[in-house]
Order: sequence, then structure tokens, then C-alpha cells
Amino acid sequence: MQLMRIGAPGAEKPVVRVDETHYIDVSDVTPDFDERFFARGGAALLADRVAAGRRRAFAGERVGAPIARPHQILCIGLNYSDHAAETGQAVPDEPILFTKSPNTLVGPYDDVRIPRGSTKTDWEVELGIVIGRRTSYLDSVEEARDAIAGYCVVNDVSERAFQMERGGQWSKGKSAETFNPAGPWLVTPDEIADVTNLGMWLTVNGVRRQTGTTKTMIFDPYVIVHHLSQFMVLEPGDLINTGTPPGVGMGQNPPVWLRPGDVMELGIDGLGSQRQKVIGPR
Amino acid sequence: MQLMRIGAPGAEKPVVRVDETHYIDVSDVTPDFDERFFARGGAALLADRVAAGRRRAFAGERVGAPIARPHQILCIGLNYSDHAAETGQAVPDEPILFTKSPNTLVGPYDDVRIPRGSTKTDWEVELGIVIGRRTSYLDSVEEARDAIAGYCVVNDVSERAFQMERGGQWSKGKSAETFNPAGPWLVTPDEIADVTNLGMWLTVNGVRRQTGTTKTMIFDPYVIVHHLSQFMVLEPGDLINTGTPPGVGMGQNPPVWLRPGDVMELGIDGLGSQRQKVIGPR
Repeated sequence: MQLMRIGAPGAEKPVVRVDETHYIDVSDVTPDFDERFFARGGAALLADRVAAGRRRAFAGERVGAPIARPHQILCIGLNYSDHAAETGQAVPDEPILFTKSPNTLVGPYDDVRIPRGSTKTDWEVELGIVIGRRTSYLDSVEEARDAIAGYCVVNDVSERAFQMERGGQWSKGKSAETFNPAGPWLVTPDEIADVTNLGMWLTVNGVRRQTGTTKTMIFDPYVIVHHLSQFMVLEPGDLINTGTPPGVGMGQNPPVWLRPGDVMELGIDGLGSQRQKVIGPR
Repeated sequence: MQLMRIGAPGAEKPVVRVDETHYIDVSDVTPDFDERFFARGGAALLADRVAAGRRRAFAGERVGAPIARPHQILCIGLNYSDHAAETGQAVPDEPILFTKSPNTLVGPYDDVRIPRGSTKTDWEVELGIVIGRRTSYLDSVEEARDAIAGYCVVNDVSERAFQMERGGQWSKGKSAETFNPAGPWLVTPDEIADVTNLGMWLTVNGVRRQTGTTKTMIFDPYVIVHHLSQFMVLEPGDLINTGTPPGVGMGQNPPVWLRPGDVMELGIDGLGSQRQKVIGPR
């Protein structure tokens, strides 16, 4: 199943995508794809409604992030060995955890705003994991499969000077408004043959910058969810950005940073694609 | 005004504290002290209800955290010069930001649970700031005063091995369940003569471990809120832990770590005091 949220920011309605041009409105089953929805069972709740539902045609509605603002956005750093190399850092022994403010979440085609004082705004195509149930102390990596509601494309937009040069921890460079486009869809795991073998790409102004595959992840989604569950309680609807393959702006020679007017396009096999225009500070 | 939430976990009702033995129920004005409450105006909404309200006697109800689970819990690291010294780290040039999972928030007298695999669970008495309005790009430090809904005591419980030895970023050592007792009250700024001159203390099993004052903060609450607003949008109800004075377990010689059965007591002048029993892992 492919879950979407369409409508104006803050007023999105939950729908199931049927195909390029049609969807089924499920707002009578759940008001939103939020913590409560996932805790109640998530996509399984929608099966009858989808089977019986009347298809509607997309009519140019804005596409929001495929989930409501989550309890937390967790991020894994340096999770592709070749990306770690391009940033000049060692391959980590275990997942590196940092966070973004949950209100960074925006739709896949929304503008990305460069923050005030920024000199080094950068892109990162990533596989996003959405948690499906309250999850703590998983006994095995295998059990993590049952904790995952689905996957989506995310752009883990980053300000490298804020991230690296402003106090040692990374959150300052990850939390500016609009810094986490997600979607267009949340795809349930049954529709993905092998989440550890998905191609990924990102272009800026039509120039290919990132080309990768989840095959080269150091820690796969199940290892990540199992690992995080040892340190905290994951809530239904929590979003985990799982790291980016090579080709970020910081890794170019010389480095390339986003500027107003730039256009980012990015996608992952089977999860759809995004397009954001970069705009200047408020 | 002193805001409290009383009742079972997840079913707390919002009240205004009158004195040691009485409160006024304000659950007919707001269902909770949450993001929506602060966005609508916060304590100002309660004035009429409090003036007209019938006092009720406390009847042994559990005391919850004084705010509902916030959008985010932000933390400032090494914000007391003498605490920085005891941890062997340099005084920072600007506030160091890290985060905790919002679901770490518990009441001031709830048990604190040592996480599985922990060897270095530690205490930190801190001044908590609660944000009162959506706040971004404040023009001046002075403007931060209007963005603050109130202050409370927090215990920024930390697992030092998870924080320092598990990947470089700190969040893994800050996010275990029960790791952020807050309260008993949220005190509005008008009731605090000078937030930069409040005594702070913490004992473990009756032994005084932390003695400090907000006077020795490196970055005061207004500087912190102004600074953070340059990097992210603060939401109403967001909680900021502003750092701890000297005397954490890590700073003892030799270090002292929490064990099941220990009792922490902590407080800040004018903001009340907390008491937590430490319990073992699940």
C-alpha cells in the first residue's frame, strides 16, 4: 500500500495511492497518518476501505509528507562507507545517532528554505523508515521487521557550518524549517522486494550529484531499529533517516552549496521521487 | 502562577497550584498544558478561571510533568563553567545543543529506571525553560523574554557510557525512558524575581552532590532562546534543559553512578523540589 497526505499544509487528508492519477480517500477511517493511526494498526486498518473505496482523480492537490509530524526524527550519520570516506571520517563501529526537530518535516515538492546566515546548505537523499509500533529492547535484529510500518524518500537537508562548526553536536545544522522533505508516499514493506537493494539518486539543476544503493549501507534498516530500541522507546510514527550515499555538496571538489533558485530532484527505486526549489532566507 | 498536572500517567488533568494543600482545576479551560494551550496564550487564559475557581484539596494524586509531551526537548551542554571543568572539557564559545526523546518526560516523583546494559547512569539538576509561542529568528536577546512561558526543575538523567562512548553524538545517552523528570510546577516568569540568580541542589541518598546557582550559567535563558531561534523554529510547549552545575556523578573522584534503590532529591529556589527512586532495568 502507498500512503499519501494531500492538501494544504496543516490540512492534509490521508489517502491511499492507487496509481499515477487516482487515490482512495481514507479520512473516514483515520483523521491522519499519525502516532495514533500507527498504534492502532496502521495500513491494516485501511484494507476494507481500500477494497470498497471509490477511486478519485488527483486534481493537482499539494502533496504533504506522508506522515503527520512525528514524535521524533532520528538520523543515522555516516551510514554508507563511501559517504564516510568523502567526508574524511572513519567508518563507524555502530550507528551514529543524531536528531532533527520534528517540525522540519515538509512535503516532497515544497520549497526548501536556506536559513539566515547559511553559507553551506547541502542535500542528502536518504531512505526513511517509519516505525509502526511502540518499540523497546528488541531481542533480535529479525524482530525489527515487525516494528517497521513502511519506507519513504527523505531529503536530510543540512547546513554544514551549523552542523560542524557551532558546538560539536550536529542538531544545529539539521533543524532549520523545511529541512526534511519526505514522500511522496509511505510504502508498506510488503511492496518492497528487498529494502537492502534499492537504487538512490539526486540531481541539482539536472546535474547528477548522488548515485547509490541501499546495498552499501553499513547498518541496514533492521540493524538500525534493533540498535536504537536498546537506547530509547520508539513511538509509532517515528521517522528514522538512515544516512546518505556519496555525492553530497560537502564531498564535491571544490564543495558545492545550495543557492536560491537551485532545484533538487531525488528518488529511490519503488519509493517515488521528490523535487524541491531552493529559496532564500526569510 | 504555578501550573501542575495531576493524575495517572497519560490521564493527568491540568490544575493551578494555590498552596501546599490546594489547587484549582482548570480542565474546563484547556484539556492539557500542551502545544495548543501555550499557542492560545498559556497562563493568561487561566486568569478568570483562577479568580473564580473553587479551591480543591490535594488528595494524594500523582504529580505528572507540568507540561504534556512537548514537540521537542532541547538541551544545552556544559553551560556552567565549573561543570565544564569537572568533565575536563573547555568552556564553549556558544551554546552546545543536543536533544532528548520527548517521551523521556515523567513526573517529579516518578521512578527513574536504569537502562539495560547501563554502567554509568548519572544525575543533573537543571533549570527547564518552557517556550510560550512559536519562535524563530528573534532579533534580540531581550525579545526572548516574551517567548518564555515559564520555568521548572528538570533532572536531565544521563547514561555517560551511552553518551560518550557510543558514536560521538550524545543523544543515545539521554533518551532512555524516565530520563527527564520535570516539575512539580511550571512557574510563570512574573513569579520569579531573577531567573539568573536561583540556588540549585541535588542529593543522592541524602548526600549533597550538586550545589550551584543559575548565576554561574555561561549562557542565560534569554541568550539560549535567542540563540536557538536562529537555527530552528521553537514551538509552544517546547522544553529546554539549560545545563547543570558541578557535582554530577561523572565529576566525583572516583566517579559515582546510580544504582537501584538510590534516591535522588533535587530542587531550585522558587521552583519546588523533586524526589525519584532509582529502579533496575526492565
